[in-house]
Amino acid sequence: MGRIKNYRFELEMKVRDYECDIQGVVNNAVYQNYLEHTRHEFIKEAGLDFAKLHKEGIDPVVYRIEIDYKFPLISGDEFICKLNFEREGNLKLIFFQDIYRKRDSKLMIKAKVIVVVLKNGRPSSPDLFVDALF
Amino acid sequence: MGRIKNYRFELEMKVRDYECDIQGVVNNAVYQNYLEHTRHEFIKEAGLDFAKLHKEGIDPVVYRIEIDYKFPLISGDEFICKLNFEREGNLKLIFFQDIYRKRDSKLMIKAKVIVVVLKNGRPSSPDLFVDALF
Amino acid sequence: MGRIKNYRFELEMKVRDYECDIQGVVNNAVYQNYLEHTRHEFIKEAGLDFAKLHKEGIDPVVYRIEIDYKFPLISGDEFICKLNFEREGNLKLIFFQDIYRKRDSKLMIKAKVIVVVLKNGRPSSPDLFVDALF
Amino acid sequence: MGRIKNYRFELEMKVRDYECDIQGVVNNAVYQNYLEHTRHEFIKEAGLDFAKLHKEGIDPVVYRIEIDYKFPLISGDEFICKLNFEREGNLKLIFFQDIYRKRDSKLMIKAKVIVVVLKNGRPSSPDLFVDALF
Repeated sequence: MGRIKNYRFELEMKVRDYECDIQGVVNNAVYQNYLEHTRHEFIKEAGLDFAKLHKEGIDPVVYRIEIDYKFPLISGDEFICKLNFEREGNLKLIFFQDIYRKRDSKLMIKAKVIVVVLKNGRPSSPDLFVDALF
Repeated sequence: MGRIKNYRFELEMKVRDYECDIQGVVNNAVYQNYLEHTRHEFIKEAGLDFAKLHKEGIDPVVYRIEIDYKFPLISGDEFICKLNFEREGNLKLIFFQDIYRKRDSKLMIKAKVIVVVLKNGRPSSPDLFVDALF
Repeated sequence: MGRIKNYRFELEMKVRDYECDIQGVVNNAVYQNYLEHTRHEFIKEAGLDFAKLHKEGIDPVVYRIEIDYKFPLISGDEFICKLNFEREGNLKLIFFQDIYRKRDSKLMIKAKVIVVVLKNGRPSSPDLFVDALF
Repeated sequence: MGRIKNYRFELEMKVRDYECDIQGVVNNAVYQNYLEHTRHEFIKEAGLDFAKLHKEGIDPVVYRIEIDYKFPLISGDEFICKLNFEREGNLKLIFFQDIYRKRDSKLMIKAKVIVVVLKNGRPSSPDLFVDALF
């Protein structure tokens, strides 16, 4: 996977010490927190309301995730989570999410997150999301 | 605070590496996870159902917590969370929760957790809990 | 405990969805993450370097924490962590840490964190910290 | 990916309430905690010591992770993390890790974790691990 030319959204964050583990680097699972927070901020900025959708029986859920750990972030690092997405077939939304270290724009994490929209527990058209996000 | 003679409940756990931080010890906030999990297991064993109570508008919430960090747990440590509780006044439940390292029964953490029961968002009698837990 | 007039440091953050639990509010243990991150940013801004100190055998550790949970933060809330501190006796540093919701400056969390400085594992004078932080 | 016939290691755990998010299910990132803890317990049982290896400059690191989220675990669920692994090429160890709900043996999570062994920061032969783990 090469670098993505155009991202639709980006969010800046900073490593917090409690996110680092014994090896002194950000724990692998924590990047999923960063990725989720970035997706949610993107979706909220597009005007979608998770709580409201949930009450209508609509829930976007992660179906599959792939993460390439290129370089580790460490205590104090500032980083930028960038995001792009596309529709795949009738039912899937694919988010391409990359994390760059701020000081040198080095690509640290490359992720692909496949999301499916459930309506009352069953896979459903993601049109609502596609329309809002594009 | 001295050692408690009789505990009403105990739960054994083991430190997981992702719970440790750069200093190689369990992160301070993680002990609160251990304490919460122990309280919840105790309450569930007494037959109370959080989800069901929540639907009836009843939610126990932590009002205040005091934790004395005596010695740190490290990677691989097995430990036992012990719990006692009493009612205080009309509205408060106090949980006394201590964490002992398993191999030598050393007291590592001493905590006091004050819980208030909310009914539709307002403080309410904890009788339901007191009856079930005693 | 009344409101503190003058804080020495403040840090703004925003609730992330993964920090919320089944009840839809920030999990109690997560506030300790917020408090720790605020202390560490304060200490780093004062020019102290945890990693360097650790190599010299100097480690500040939390000795006791008291948290009053006044009101819960929820998904999307922006908040400000404010901090003050003082020395107590020969060996203790006390951090007073309050969390305010940004939109209405409502006091949500009130905490008192007692820190002891260990040198090669034994309690030691916190002068180094006191000098840097004041 | 079909079900694996023979696993080399398995570990039983139980969902803790603080691991669940607003939707009432285990947060996606938490499964990575479960997977990491299972790998570490497996590696420790095989007699390898992370801290000792780290001092010798040897660190196993996750290079890539793929997780299929089939069904969500919820509060109170007991589950079993099963693990198998194989060597791929000269430099990679692949862990196949599946999570089953205990009460009905339903496959909930299917993961593939590629690990590379670093020696003084550079990719190195995983022989040490392969010999101990097989």
